[in-house]
Amino acid sequence: MRRTGFTTEHEDFRAMIRDFLAREAVPNFDKWLETGLVPREFFRQLGELGVTGMAIPEEYGGGGLEDFRYNAILSEEAARALIALGSLRVHIDINIPYFLAYANEEQKQRWFPGFVSGELLTSIAMTEPGTGSDLAGMSTTAVLDGDHYVLNGAKTFITGGAQADLVIVVARTSRDETNRRNGLTLLVVEDGMPGFTKGRNLAKIGLKVQDTVELSFTDVRVPVANRLGDEGQGFYYLGHNLPQERLTIALGSLGMARAAVDTTIEYVKERKVFGKAVAEFQNTKFELAAMATEIEAGQAMADRALAEHVAGELSPADAAKVKLYLTELQGRVVDRCLQLFGGYGYILEYPIARMYADARVTRIYGGTSEVMKTIISKSLGL
Amino acid sequence: MRRTGFTTEHEDFRAMIRDFLAREAVPNFDKWLETGLVPREFFRQLGELGVTGMAIPEEYGGGGLEDFRYNAILSEEAARALIALGSLRVHIDINIPYFLAYANEEQKQRWFPGFVSGELLTSIAMTEPGTGSDLAGMSTTAVLDGDHYVLNGAKTFITGGAQADLVIVVARTSRDETNRRNGLTLLVVEDGMPGFTKGRNLAKIGLKVQDTVELSFTDVRVPVANRLGDEGQGFYYLGHNLPQERLTIALGSLGMARAAVDTTIEYVKERKVFGKAVAEFQNTKFELAAMATEIEAGQAMADRALAEHVAGELSPADAAKVKLYLTELQGRVVDRCLQLFGGYGYILEYPIARMYADARVTRIYGGTSEVMKTIISKSLGL
Amino acid sequence: MRRTGFTTEHEDFRAMIRDFLAREAVPNFDKWLETGLVPREFFRQLGELGVTGMAIPEEYGGGGLEDFRYNAILSEEAARALIALGSLRVHIDINIPYFLAYANEEQKQRWFPGFVSGELLTSIAMTEPGTGSDLAGMSTTAVLDGDHYVLNGAKTFITGGAQADLVIVVARTSRDETNRRNGLTLLVVEDGMPGFTKGRNLAKIGLKVQDTVELSFTDVRVPVANRLGDEGQGFYYLGHNLPQERLTIALGSLGMARAAVDTTIEYVKERKVFGKAVAEFQNTKFELAAMATEIEAGQAMADRALAEHVAGELSPADAAKVKLYLTELQGRVVDRCLQLFGGYGYILEYPIARMYADARVTRIYGGTSEVMKTIISKSLGL
Amino acid sequence: MRRTGFTTEHEDFRAMIRDFLAREAVPNFDKWLETGLVPREFFRQLGELGVTGMAIPEEYGGGGLEDFRYNAILSEEAARALIALGSLRVHIDINIPYFLAYANEEQKQRWFPGFVSGELLTSIAMTEPGTGSDLAGMSTTAVLDGDHYVLNGAKTFITGGAQADLVIVVARTSRDETNRRNGLTLLVVEDGMPGFTKGRNLAKIGLKVQDTVELSFTDVRVPVANRLGDEGQGFYYLGHNLPQERLTIALGSLGMARAAVDTTIEYVKERKVFGKAVAEFQNTKFELAAMATEIEAGQAMADRALAEHVAGELSPADAAKVKLYLTELQGRVVDRCLQLFGGYGYILEYPIARMYADARVTRIYGGTSEVMKTIISKSLGL
Repeated sequence: MRRTGFTTEHEDFRAMIRDFLAREAVPNFDKWLETGLVPREFFRQLGELGVTGMAIPEEYGGGGLEDFRYNAILSEEAARALIALGSLRVHIDINIPYFLAYANEEQKQRWFPGFVSGELLTSIAMTEPGTGSDLAGMSTTAVLDGDHYVLNGAKTFITGGAQADLVIVVARTSRDETNRRNGLTLLVVEDGMPGFTKGRNLAKIGLKVQDTVELSFTDVRVPVANRLGDEGQGFYYLGHNLPQERLTIALGSLGMARAAVDTTIEYVKERKVFGKAVAEFQNTKFELAAMATEIEAGQAMADRALAEHVAGELSPADAAKVKLYLTELQGRVVDRCLQLFGGYGYILEYPIARMYADARVTRIYGGTSEVMKTIISKSLGL
Repeated sequence: MRRTGFTTEHEDFRAMIRDFLAREAVPNFDKWLETGLVPREFFRQLGELGVTGMAIPEEYGGGGLEDFRYNAILSEEAARALIALGSLRVHIDINIPYFLAYANEEQKQRWFPGFVSGELLTSIAMTEPGTGSDLAGMSTTAVLDGDHYVLNGAKTFITGGAQADLVIVVARTSRDETNRRNGLTLLVVEDGMPGFTKGRNLAKIGLKVQDTVELSFTDVRVPVANRLGDEGQGFYYLGHNLPQERLTIALGSLGMARAAVDTTIEYVKERKVFGKAVAEFQNTKFELAAMATEIEAGQAMADRALAEHVAGELSPADAAKVKLYLTELQGRVVDRCLQLFGGYGYILEYPIARMYADARVTRIYGGTSEVMKTIISKSLGL
Repeated sequence: MRRTGFTTEHEDFRAMIRDFLAREAVPNFDKWLETGLVPREFFRQLGELGVTGMAIPEEYGGGGLEDFRYNAILSEEAARALIALGSLRVHIDINIPYFLAYANEEQKQRWFPGFVSGELLTSIAMTEPGTGSDLAGMSTTAVLDGDHYVLNGAKTFITGGAQADLVIVVARTSRDETNRRNGLTLLVVEDGMPGFTKGRNLAKIGLKVQDTVELSFTDVRVPVANRLGDEGQGFYYLGHNLPQERLTIALGSLGMARAAVDTTIEYVKERKVFGKAVAEFQNTKFELAAMATEIEAGQAMADRALAEHVAGELSPADAAKVKLYLTELQGRVVDRCLQLFGGYGYILEYPIARMYADARVTRIYGGTSEVMKTIISKSLGL
Repeated sequence: MRRTGFTTEHEDFRAMIRDFLAREAVPNFDKWLETGLVPREFFRQLGELGVTGMAIPEEYGGGGLEDFRYNAILSEEAARALIALGSLRVHIDINIPYFLAYANEEQKQRWFPGFVSGELLTSIAMTEPGTGSDLAGMSTTAVLDGDHYVLNGAKTFITGGAQADLVIVVARTSRDETNRRNGLTLLVVEDGMPGFTKGRNLAKIGLKVQDTVELSFTDVRVPVANRLGDEGQGFYYLGHNLPQERLTIALGSLGMARAAVDTTIEYVKERKVFGKAVAEFQNTKFELAAMATEIEAGQAMADRALAEHVAGELSPADAAKVKLYLTELQGRVVDRCLQLFGGYGYILEYPIARMYADARVTRIYGGTSEVMKTIISKSLGL
């Protein structure tokens, strides 16, 4: 069915991105996998194209387009090209919005030009060993000492942490026994600050073009000028940005699921077993028909959510539904697609294998499916 | 998320229908179940409200609103009221459109006033014992003899056949060995025509407010004036109307699934086991959250399909996807809801039990899920 | 794979039962469905065959075979014959064991001959409106008054209650605030005792050859001589018999699932659609292969559980696993089988339709799947 | 429930293996993962223990125990220790049986001592690029030239091929147009034979302690003395060994599923989120209860199949059922377990992550689930 909500400008952007990825990303993707990183050069190229800074106001050199449909298109086109963009999506879909929303004028002038040029990379550090999705349970502390905060603690599962120049760290600036959600503050830690150590790159099942690291902070002195937003408001800032974070994961999942189906359809038409094309077996037809149907439902849901988000009306519960639904859909679809590749599906040179390995985390990060269900059930009055 | 595509007029209609059903249908629904029929009186009431004839052109006394959103609203509101409208939906969503599309002027004048008043009920007879969804395999024959067709054959699974005044019968008027799809013609058989016998009412798992009968035709002389459309075009007429038929089933399924979730949420909040409300168990919360999420995806898909249909652009493959997806969704959801009722879920005085029994047929009629997958896989080039 | 654990005696019994059911039950089954009861005459015939009293000691005229494999065979053969035995299985698999275990000498002499002859039918009344599977929450009371208990309360979902001559009623004889499980006692209420009323027969989705009724007790004077076992031990007696109750449900479910697959295999070989047998479609083959595989796993589990039970070693947690697994298996299998029948699967004259309607309750009665999971998780130390 | 079929000798063997793995394998497993191989030294240690040659007749220095229960125990204990034994299982469960069944006296004397000592490693090369599970479609050829076969062709997905000293190659020695299954012969190719090249190690999603390579053969002269069994009988030899091959995969899958559940139970008891142990959430309890139940069914099925196999009676269709069921079970269980680990489940230092990555291939190799269903459906007469 026809998608709605995209204008000619969006479609021009899509064509530009599709062309760019085919030319600059696809031929190099194997190298990215080997090095485990999207190279800085690629971020700079995207900067030149106006992509990394598309949401940054024009007065700081950006595109002034705070329209999440562009982000969605980028994500869709990467999936379509059977590649992954690693920490890029976290950088522009999740992190930059914090700066857009909470940076003061001085910070904007300091950092936005680097976002626009693609030279300044970011990551965000929420999760701690032992807390998982329970933000309110954080124990990293930041104690005010003159015009600095003294930061101590450890974070884990930090996407893009190794490569980042700036890390938004969520730290506890005060303890409120009556409300565990109070007292969290966002601090921007810069690479190289004394006491800030980047730990080992965690070996993961998939997501091989992005680092995922542990970070540790020992008496790191962070200038108050690096505080993002007001003291003690961190939990609410995080909550405010979660719908977009979840939406971007969801849209990425759907894009991957769709790409998996597309590449599988191509494969089964070519591949022969027992003397005929895999596509000729009824089982193959039915599997792909069922998956295409799920994608169609997922796309309708995704587009509705995207429209609501663009209108500023996507509720946390709806974002949770969209994340839950589309990441679970991705899990089912990618698994069924891989099966149709037979043994080749298990070999990493086939994109479906990488997609399978990548897919398993989406039901977990950005809030597990169980956390999503908890949020949704509350919205049902349960 | 917010649904789109309904205007103020639609919402006024919805309010009117909701009120009408609460007043006239809900209190009598148990009687309908006992007698196994929606009574003719109810059809007449709907006629007075302008509902049975809403799609009929104004020149014949109808509402002139060939806008399927009204049909969708009727279906949604019946589900919401935890009742079923039996053969009414087949009459107005599936049968009347054949008359609208293919009746000639004389036929319109003869039959449309009865549709408008709610006094003339219809059914459609496609399936034969032994053919299932394979329309091209029909063996009922109609042989032209002067200004009559002589009709012989048998039909089965005819919804509303016992109650119908007019039955659209699909019969073979010629045999084309090169194309099994040619040679089918639609004839309108009237109740009481000699040789036309209505067989026994088949006992079904559910759908207890509508009859489902076998019909037999022995040398029934049907005037040529009762032929709907051109001779030999039956297969194409049926094909043309299938998307709407499947869409109405799909929308009905979604409505039932949503109603099942709503009534279950109410139930689990009140019902206590092991000293606490069923709603307080995490399993209950998670089940309902998962179902609400499926409903949300299904609604987005349904609304997109409805918009495409209203715009005259719903393809057969997309209609198949929507039917496949929403009827399977209904099956899963109603089963899970029933479980949360415990033993009461198995007792027919609880609407969930009736919904469960009703639900099982939607994956079959109007084309089985397997037929849907076949259609969809062809659209994928498989 | 070959089943183990049955001797020649068991196989002789199986042959005898198979023959008897084919002769006496199958031809009359439609009548049973119409009247909603297995007739008393059939119980008497089974009495003559030595079946109703097979577990009763020889000194009371019984078979002296307290070997649950015979019960399993009866259940398997009924399923194989595509019929249901209604409350018979509750009577001999669930109720008689209470009498065997807890009746005193006088009671044995009074009641066992009637069990042996098939003239005395029983039911058991545990569930109350509002308690579900929570036995400890019962509020029916029995107050000792001389040599009688004065019984007051209401029970629901009582299988075979309308037909029963004797009802084992679980009542509270004392209230122990420190342990809700104490204070329950089993009393045998006789049909016709003043104050004992049998309520309406609840209309169910399926299980149409057995009544399911509400019972009410208003100052019913039950002689102390009708107390089964010791006062206050009811909860423990029920707990002791639950594994066998759950095993019998599980075995019945497996038998039905197997019969469903068998009848479906026959059907798809004969039934033609689109010009070929349904059996020739790969989807049909794969569906049935998957189901046959599930049955094979289920049978291995069932036979192991049966062997453990015969050896007196089936733990409550293992019985819960067997019930959970086999009733869920039945649900999945019967649903998939029905689909392969197309429209006929929804018509009650096809046994698959009845099986579908019957199946939905097994995941609920005898303890819901959720209660089973709770029991199992405790056994895992969770 | 209690497992059956193991004697004291088996349990002694189990204790010995458990102790050995804990001492020699577990501490080194990370090194194995790094190097991508189970080291030869470990095979030699197993040789000293009598394990690699346990099935070899005593006259060649072996254990003389052709009892597959020992193989099963080895597989179970490796899973229990949360490690994988790479190509070892293929070597002793799949390859050595070919030598046992078809080697002539001279070959036995030549190779069996090396199997016993653990110094001679084997692999088997069936699959070709483009044939998948379709053995009859092989195109590798061996042309007799004096007392040698001249071998040409390519094989892929060869487990342990890089490390193997001997490779059983399935080649076509004649072409029979009337029966594609005729004309296949087994040849033992030795490492280092001219024209035999071992290709690159294929990068896989998991199975990181075993190589999987492509092999190519260009005019490799294989002495007739290296032919295993009779010329032209290859297809039948392969068919004869397939049940054991599939059984070993199935048992391995079950072992992994069980180990996954065990390690998850431990984890959820320790791990805290939102202030309480993960184990305390009802969702966790229910998930693990459901999985433990599946394991219980799977174990009963596995043990029955193992007993049938030991008795020489496991049919190809039953082996297919067991492989289908247990590999699908593994897929479901490992996925659900991983979810309960949250983010840690995606990090390879947690065994559950490796298990997840390893699990995906078992539904494919040794015959895909689709091939299993095809075999099973034939046995149902479909």
